[in-house]
Amino acid sequence: MITPLERNAPSRPLALTMGDPAGIGPELALKAWATRGAENLSPFCIYACAETLRARDALLGSNVPIEVVASPGDAADAFERALPVIDVPVAEPVVVGLPSPGNGAPTIAAITRAVDDVKSGHAAAVVTNPIAKSVLYAAGFKYPGHTEFLAALADKHWLGAGHTAIMMLASDELRVVPLTIHVPLASVPEMITRELIETAVRITAESLRRDFGVAQPRIAIAGLNPHAGEDGTIGREEEEIIGPVLSALRSDSVTLIGPLSADTMFHAAARATYDAAICMYHDQALIPIKTLAFDKGVNVTLGLPFIRTSPDHGTAFGIAARGIASPQSLIEALRLANRMVHARAKARI
Amino acid sequence: MITPLERNAPSRPLALTMGDPAGIGPELALKAWATRGAENLSPFCIYACAETLRARDALLGSNVPIEVVASPGDAADAFERALPVIDVPVAEPVVVGLPSPGNGAPTIAAITRAVDDVKSGHAAAVVTNPIAKSVLYAAGFKYPGHTEFLAALADKHWLGAGHTAIMMLASDELRVVPLTIHVPLASVPEMITRELIETAVRITAESLRRDFGVAQPRIAIAGLNPHAGEDGTIGREEEEIIGPVLSALRSDSVTLIGPLSADTMFHAAARATYDAAICMYHDQALIPIKTLAFDKGVNVTLGLPFIRTSPDHGTAFGIAARGIASPQSLIEALRLANRMVHARAKARI
Repeated sequence: MITPLERNAPSRPLALTMGDPAGIGPELALKAWATRGAENLSPFCIYACAETLRARDALLGSNVPIEVVASPGDAADAFERALPVIDVPVAEPVVVGLPSPGNGAPTIAAITRAVDDVKSGHAAAVVTNPIAKSVLYAAGFKYPGHTEFLAALADKHWLGAGHTAIMMLASDELRVVPLTIHVPLASVPEMITRELIETAVRITAESLRRDFGVAQPRIAIAGLNPHAGEDGTIGREEEEIIGPVLSALRSDSVTLIGPLSADTMFHAAARATYDAAICMYHDQALIPIKTLAFDKGVNVTLGLPFIRTSPDHGTAFGIAARGIASPQSLIEALRLANRMVHARAKARI
Repeated sequence: MITPLERNAPSRPLALTMGDPAGIGPELALKAWATRGAENLSPFCIYACAETLRARDALLGSNVPIEVVASPGDAADAFERALPVIDVPVAEPVVVGLPSPGNGAPTIAAITRAVDDVKSGHAAAVVTNPIAKSVLYAAGFKYPGHTEFLAALADKHWLGAGHTAIMMLASDELRVVPLTIHVPLASVPEMITRELIETAVRITAESLRRDFGVAQPRIAIAGLNPHAGEDGTIGREEEEIIGPVLSALRSDSVTLIGPLSADTMFHAAARATYDAAICMYHDQALIPIKTLAFDKGVNVTLGLPFIRTSPDHGTAFGIAARGIASPQSLIEALRLANRMVHARAKARI
């Protein structure tokens, strides 16, 4: 059975959300569109306030033609000549750099509409510009963050009861999945459970097959302690939790390497031996990828029914509309989403 | 007053120790000497068993001429034509790859003699080949490791009462100082104290000035938690310990940057803003340097009265005398020791 999500994958545009309209999102979208030729970008349309985009374009002097379209289908046609916009008007005038709770509702609406169009098969994948959670909270937003909201729109739970969605950071050099994210380091050891590792391995392997075209995934798993515990002499989590769960999960269809000494698993020769690395905590995963690919890392949400990527930075209110924000991570996010769309279409043939 | 350590620094050879004679140390020394021209190495002499070196040379077919010398002074003259050896005979025949407690005493004697010659000013610095602690314990060795033994020979204590010696990993790209090393991750938060940070900052700043020629040291300090705690919302150690101690230590003579989010402090542009990074734990320090410079990292002991470097790997019994061990880290250790000797001599003019 072909579901709406699967039809005609490559010709549908990517659905890019506006993010916080007072941040750098609109500027990045204008800049990314302007590089579509040089960067060979596939069509995308932005779910955003057209008036805000025009004002930002005027402020930046970027001369990007902006065309309001009725549907993602029209966007694919318009993309060559203009930045196609599915218009989601803001509720009150945007002050550059000053987020407003009054514009929380349209910021959320842009995400919801983009996801709806992807779920119905009219757009290929969601690429999200950064939002400011604190602003959305004031507008009644009830989710810990962007990804949890997307998981809810997909009827999934973000590391909730079912542990069904996880984060990957991806660049040309490395793909990493942190098992725990924004928690104090002291809380990490107690959070590393068999269930968490099992879920991450399963979702990562599935996604490597389906979204990254890796038929036989090889996943490296970091230890928690220095030297992966050195046979239990520097911490016991590798012997008691990580090692046993990896032994139980090994199969013909997935190669699990580890638990590895985290310090020696990220140089070029080591990286060539696996397709993704699962790490125990934030810095263990993010130090290597940001050291290797600082402004080219892309955030990917694995475990959702649709493809979602996002640039790996925030709203950057402090530099909004000053012309200095780098669109590189957004460009990489658009490019990776497109590659994932193609891989997923191919996996289904 | 000129002490013996200070005289005529650049012309004295480096004192290289044999390390465990059954490991890769002898092979690395032979290989390093053979590259002395291509790598432009300054003279070194090895404190080792000459017979063992000759046997290893024969086994490898490396045709390195070996010359027993009576003193480091003779070694400098001999270095062009042969690998100079201060002979420290082994106690029993060496079986390649099989460490023997019976050879623990000569392994230790080689270190003691090398340090004596450096302390008396006849050699310029100590460069140590790897030892196997477990073997030395059987021979009555009473120190937790190599560095603690060297600290004792220097009448210092390794992170003991006086916290006077600390470890740095150095490469061309980055210098890192881990505050804690081989301890379980769960123990790290409680070990991060004001005193430990203070000592590390002081010793690192002193060493950057004296050994690395940095007149106005800039030291970056990582936070313990993701995003350096994000204003106390992801852990309190930055607000309660790290931040206050850095505020107290800031002065005209040292720039202290931090506590920083560890993930974004190791890319090229960030590294250009500081001379060394102090990290809270093993992997936070070693992931970035081993990702950037896997086989070129050098271990440096800061806070000793003499200069000591060592390659950043172990005895590698499993590959001893097979010809495949890379001498790169030893070569970098010799080169860095030499640069430090020159910097220290210059700092004293």
